Amino acid sequence: MAKVNIKPLADRVLIEPVEAETKTASGIIIPDTAKEKPQKGKVVAVGPGTKDEAITVKVGDTVLYGKYAGTELKLDGSDYLMMRESDILAIV
Amino acid sequence: MAKVNIKPLADRVLIEPVEAETKTASGIIIPDTAKEKPQKGKVVAVGPGTKDEAITVKVGDTVLYGKYAGTELKLDGSDYLMMRESDILAIV
Amino acid sequence: MAKVNIKPLADRVLIEPVEAETKTASGIIIPDTAKEKPQKGKVVAVGPGTKDEAITVKVGDTVLYGKYAGTELKLDGSDYLMMRESDILAIV
Amino acid sequence: MAKVNIKPLADRVLIEPVEAETKTASGIIIPDTAKEKPQKGKVVAVGPGTKDEAITVKVGDTVLYGKYAGTELKLDGSDYLMMRESDILAIV
Amino acid sequence: MAKVNIKPLADRVLIEPVEAETKTASGIIIPDTAKEKPQKGKVVAVGPGTKDEAITVKVGDTVLYGKYAGTELKLDGSDYLMMRESDILAIV
Amino acid sequence: MAKVNIKPLADRVLIEPVEAETKTASGIIIPDTAKEKPQKGKVVAVGPGTKDEAITVKVGDTVLYGKYAGTELKLDGSDYLMMRESDILAIV
Amino acid sequence: MAKVNIKPLADRVLIEPVEAETKTASGIIIPDTAKEKPQKGKVVAVGPGTKDEAITVKVGDTVLYGKYAGTELKLDGSDYLMMRESDILAIV
Repeated sequence: MAKVNIKPLADRVLIEPVEAETKTASGIIIPDTAKEKPQKGKVVAVGPGTKDEAITVKVGDTVLYGKYAGTELKLDGSDYLMMRESDILAIV
Repeated sequence: MAKVNIKPLADRVLIEPVEAETKTASGIIIPDTAKEKPQKGKVVAVGPGTKDEAITVKVGDTVLYGKYAGTELKLDGSDYLMMRESDILAIV
Repeated sequence: MAKVNIKPLADRVLIEPVEAETKTASGIIIPDTAKEKPQKGKVVAVGPGTKDEAITVKVGDTVLYGKYAGTELKLDGSDYLMMRESDILAIV
Repeated sequence: MAKVNIKPLADRVLIEPVEAETKTASGIIIPDTAKEKPQKGKVVAVGPGTKDEAITVKVGDTVLYGKYAGTELKLDGSDYLMMRESDILAIV
Repeated sequence: MAKVNIKPLADRVLIEPVEAETKTASGIIIPDTAKEKPQKGKVVAVGPGTKDEAITVKVGDTVLYGKYAGTELKLDGSDYLMMRESDILAIV
Repeated sequence: MAKVNIKPLADRVLIEPVEAETKTASGIIIPDTAKEKPQKGKVVAVGPGTKDEAITVKVGDTVLYGKYAGTELKLDGSDYLMMRESDILAIV
Repeated sequence: MAKVNIKPLADRVLIEPVEAETKTASGIIIPDTAKEKPQKGKVVAVGPGTKDEAITVKVGDTVLYGKYAGTELKLDGSDYLMMRESDILAIV
């Protein structure tokens, strides 16, 4: 997980997607139909939250997210996803 | 019901669908038109709830849910559904 | 009205539809165009309500509801409808 | 105005439509384009209101309502409309 | 401005449209494209307002309103418009 | 800027559009694609605001607004736009 | 970054887009598919915020924003974007 110099605003979270594997360490297997766009990633930066929503995930957490969640960004050759925390389904 | 290492966020619930049978233990029969996608399952993990909504279902509860509720996930070869508690209709 | 072992969540109500008749006991006649899907039923189970909405109907009440209200469920060979109380029009 | 045994829920009102006339007692004339579906009626039953909205109309009031307001019900051979009070435009 | 016996509910206002002229007393000219349906009228009755919105206009005010605002009603041979006060743009 | 006798309601603002120029006094240039409908104007009348929103702009301010903002009105031969203050982008 | 004489209203922010480069100082690379419309810019003016939302970004901050965010404005020959702060993804 690369160190990135970026401060997400509000309830946004920056995620480094993890390549889909047949079987991951925690045993989660991303369904075949989602192979081309991984739904699992590492949190690399989190915003300060909003008045209404505190941020639950921490930098370093591995999270699952919906297939169409977030906006793609490129950083030092890697792909990242910027999404709202509400688009994150679970910590694994 | 397999033990899974996953922490749903907010008001989300992870459910292991139960195969549709002609007649279940509690007598609930899933209608024919819904046979290919069961609407009944076991709760295997629950989120902490939100400020506005506490979580009512508990791990181990058998629940009924709407036909199109939730996001599919695969775990150790089994299919799971991640959904918001508001998509759950009843505990049976 | 069969006894059913089901606990609706939140503001949901389980209803056993009553077959449309030409003239019911209370004198309510379901319009012809709605004959194939009755709009009158008995309440067989109610949820605990929500913080915002208490439940008004009780088990045993006969209620009228909108033609497209609710989700169909089968139980011991009978058809039921699970709907939110706000989809119920009146107690008759 | 017939006596009906029906208790509307929440902010709902049961209305007995009045046939469109060329000139009514209060002088209101329903526009020609609305002749086939009257927009004026007598209130025959009112709900208890909601936490947010008290009910303003009373049984016996003559009211005007929007052309597509409400759900049709038949009772002892007469047509009724069940609508939310917010669909009622005015008392005449 | 005729006297009418009608009590609008909530935040509704009854308006008697004024025929579009080339140049009105206050100098407001309704644009040509709106000639066939006047956008200016006299307030003839106002509702009591709602908990959230007090009524600002008074009976006798001349107001401007959006081209598609309100529901048409006929009264003693004249056309009226029933609209919510939020559909009124200005007092002239 | 003509004096107009009009009182906008709530959070509405009456604006006299300024013709698009190649380069304005404040240096703002309206993009070519918006030439046929200016996006800059003078405030000529403001409403009293609402409980939720006080009015920020004052009569005489020059403002920028979105291309499709507001309702067109004609007054003494000039075109005006009536819009909500939330449709105004900035004071220049 | 030019000095501009413009006061955004409410939670709006005026941004001077930065041309997309292969690799920026902070290492952020705008994805190829977004080359024709940069998603990175300098904040040149900020509104006072609203009752519900304080403004987080400051004049001089470099920010990332969604591909279709904001309204384009031209000023002294340069292109600017006026957007709500909620359309800004992060400070880099």
